[in-house]
Amino acid sequence: MASNTLLLPDWVIPVAPSQGALPGHGVAVGRGRILDLAPHAELRARHPDAQVRPLPGCALLPGFVNLHTHAAMSLLRGAGDDLPLMTWLRERIWPLESRLLSPDFVYDGSALAFAEMLAGGTTCCADMYFHPDDVARAALSIGIRAVVGGSVFEMPGGPSAESLLSQALAAHEKYRGEPGLRFMLAPHAPYTVGDDMLRRLAAMAEEADLPIAIHLQETQQEVEEAVVSSGMRPTERLAGLGLLSPRLIAVHGVHLDAMDIELLASHGASVAHCPASNLKLASGLAPVAQLQAAGVNVGIGTDGAASNNRLDMLSELRLAALLAKGASGDACALPAHRALYAATLGGAKALGWDGEIGSIETGKCADLVAIKLDSARLSPVFDPVSHVVYAAGREDIDEVWVNGESVAKKLQLTKSPSKSDLERIMSRISQWRLRASGVISGTNTYFYQE
Amino acid sequence: MASNTLLLPDWVIPVAPSQGALPGHGVAVGRGRILDLAPHAELRARHPDAQVRPLPGCALLPGFVNLHTHAAMSLLRGAGDDLPLMTWLRERIWPLESRLLSPDFVYDGSALAFAEMLAGGTTCCADMYFHPDDVARAALSIGIRAVVGGSVFEMPGGPSAESLLSQALAAHEKYRGEPGLRFMLAPHAPYTVGDDMLRRLAAMAEEADLPIAIHLQETQQEVEEAVVSSGMRPTERLAGLGLLSPRLIAVHGVHLDAMDIELLASHGASVAHCPASNLKLASGLAPVAQLQAAGVNVGIGTDGAASNNRLDMLSELRLAALLAKGASGDACALPAHRALYAATLGGAKALGWDGEIGSIETGKCADLVAIKLDSARLSPVFDPVSHVVYAAGREDIDEVWVNGESVAKKLQLTKSPSKSDLERIMSRISQWRLRASGVISGTNTYFYQE
Repeated sequence: MASNTLLLPDWVIPVAPSQGALPGHGVAVGRGRILDLAPHAELRARHPDAQVRPLPGCALLPGFVNLHTHAAMSLLRGAGDDLPLMTWLRERIWPLESRLLSPDFVYDGSALAFAEMLAGGTTCCADMYFHPDDVARAALSIGIRAVVGGSVFEMPGGPSAESLLSQALAAHEKYRGEPGLRFMLAPHAPYTVGDDMLRRLAAMAEEADLPIAIHLQETQQEVEEAVVSSGMRPTERLAGLGLLSPRLIAVHGVHLDAMDIELLASHGASVAHCPASNLKLASGLAPVAQLQAAGVNVGIGTDGAASNNRLDMLSELRLAALLAKGASGDACALPAHRALYAATLGGAKALGWDGEIGSIETGKCADLVAIKLDSARLSPVFDPVSHVVYAAGREDIDEVWVNGESVAKKLQLTKSPSKSDLERIMSRISQWRLRASGVISGTNTYFYQE
Repeated sequence: MASNTLLLPDWVIPVAPSQGALPGHGVAVGRGRILDLAPHAELRARHPDAQVRPLPGCALLPGFVNLHTHAAMSLLRGAGDDLPLMTWLRERIWPLESRLLSPDFVYDGSALAFAEMLAGGTTCCADMYFHPDDVARAALSIGIRAVVGGSVFEMPGGPSAESLLSQALAAHEKYRGEPGLRFMLAPHAPYTVGDDMLRRLAAMAEEADLPIAIHLQETQQEVEEAVVSSGMRPTERLAGLGLLSPRLIAVHGVHLDAMDIELLASHGASVAHCPASNLKLASGLAPVAQLQAAGVNVGIGTDGAASNNRLDMLSELRLAALLAKGASGDACALPAHRALYAATLGGAKALGWDGEIGSIETGKCADLVAIKLDSARLSPVFDPVSHVVYAAGREDIDEVWVNGESVAKKLQLTKSPSKSDLERIMSRISQWRLRASGVISGTNTYFYQE
């Protein structure tokens, strides 16, 4: 095992327990863990044999936790923009998925997405998609920490919910020994999964100690149709079925009323806020300020690249911080440190992984990102925390570490096998694009054809 | 004069007259102008002596036009985040400006901002601030095309409106021979400038053939107070004073009702939409979809770095495209090509400069930006136009040209004297930061002190 390393940035932003930036602090890393957090001189004195890595001009943060994505959909990035939601689903996403979905598609797409995320400072993500075994393989190959959720649907004409659930559980079993992989249960949505299956998944989550993620109240239409068909709002229905608990990750949560928020809060559930996707599909503006006021834990997700179209937590958390203000009319809503919390420890907490990741605290995994703040385009620096949130972009990410190992520099993966795996996938990108374009052709949007 | 150059990207996105991307096309550039736009082979045949610059994987676009900024405020970037608007103004921005404003402050801050913009693909911007002579000097030094507006206020205790107007007119006169500099009249807002001065500026704009920019209906409070004090909404008042015309740039235009929009449309006025600033200060969501439906020309602005905090047109146009959908509930609102139009030709049109800039058309100035779309993080590419808008970021900008000269590569200025001027300014940044921190100290927000 390599010797300990001292990372000496200009500031450490631990996220918790301290909210602010600690100037002149650094971090000692060893055996994949954060060993120490202290001023530079103290660190040097306490770890005289450690290798020293100065990070001049940088702020060192915990890696971002992307609380909601469909990684494999990176292969459909931009394949259906500027379309109404139902046209997007019916004429683009569903036909594309029904024709292209395969273990290879999921492996290549997931690895491509994980590479983008990891290079951009996202060291952990929660994924909901098909072929969870291939998602897990891709996460291992790229070297990102992941919580894999094999989606469960009960849809006529689709794969059976039983087989989807079996795949999810088999993947969970197969990768049990991998410390960087965890699993969650992932019923797609209240309108695609029936009461019996939801009850069963809630019990299973409790028994196996797993998070359970579900798309919830993403659109107004979903809520209205649920009220007509069940006489209840979806959140109320989930409460009755036993799904509301600290294990629950309510994805989107755009159209939540005061009672929905109270139900989520009183059961300790979390919300995965996906602002770019909610805007792009015109779903609406999530009540983030109200959720926070009610004490609901909020994490941030990019959603899949088909509705975003970048898997970039830094632009996502900036958007979340800006949009919360515009949506609430309160310029103090979701201030910088809370946006940063949501994008790191808030996500980790939702996943039940906050004992090990999400903040720079002694004993946690050394999943870290260094953001360079001393370039002309970011000068001057008054408050490094608000600078990271409102001013910095992916272009300012200097280096990323997972378990103390440097995995990316200046947006490029640096480690094998992730680097060579990504090269192999890139050699297949034009094939995937041509196959997708073939499915779409006949529509009148411009598509580039070679 | 250097020989002609052929720029051969994978796609040209001319913005007008064609909305889409032209695969396999390139541009011939000579004497600072766009000489030709054609498929690669035709270009090579028609310009056999030209130097050839392949731009593999790139889309070539017109440079962005930032329709609203206060460039010098880059020195206050992040000096007052997460504060309510009036606290932000009264406890941060106004005290800082009243203590720090000087020709040096304006020169350094403007040059810093222009450097950030230019490196990020913004080749023209419209600025409203004090000391317009120093703004103009900074634009010349950095090499960005600029429309300089010396702000005019009538505020008790402030500098006299007459002296501000004289400064603006003197700068206009002094730089008359500079082809890259233009001027506009810039009354600050309807609530800070009286009827007589507004009437006079409207007449002056007409006579001297100048654009006239004014902050308009940025907040609900502004509209309500105007109705109480004048019995009219601000737009109606401006109409009565003769300000509404194709010369008018209504900045922000957040709280516009149907009659305001109709007035702007019928007079051919433009709106400078600043989505990040409107969100950050919780001003609200501008009715961009309605403005476009009414035929109002819309450009995009970053506003100053004190309320954004990045002067990045690529993230601003993405936000505009996303937010228009969320604000209107229509996923087709402000589609990619219209967002891109707003960020280029729409801005140029508002400034009356669309005969020379804003699109890739033969005869126009060769102000260009190359965006690299073939990286893993942007793969695959279906539609290059929507990719530029929804997926690309500042990190993907490969090269920028003004008047056919390469001025920046990979976010770094490459040309003297702009490069050395920026270095000199960077050596003074910590002094500006310390002076600003001194003004602010006593407030309880965390500020980094050396």
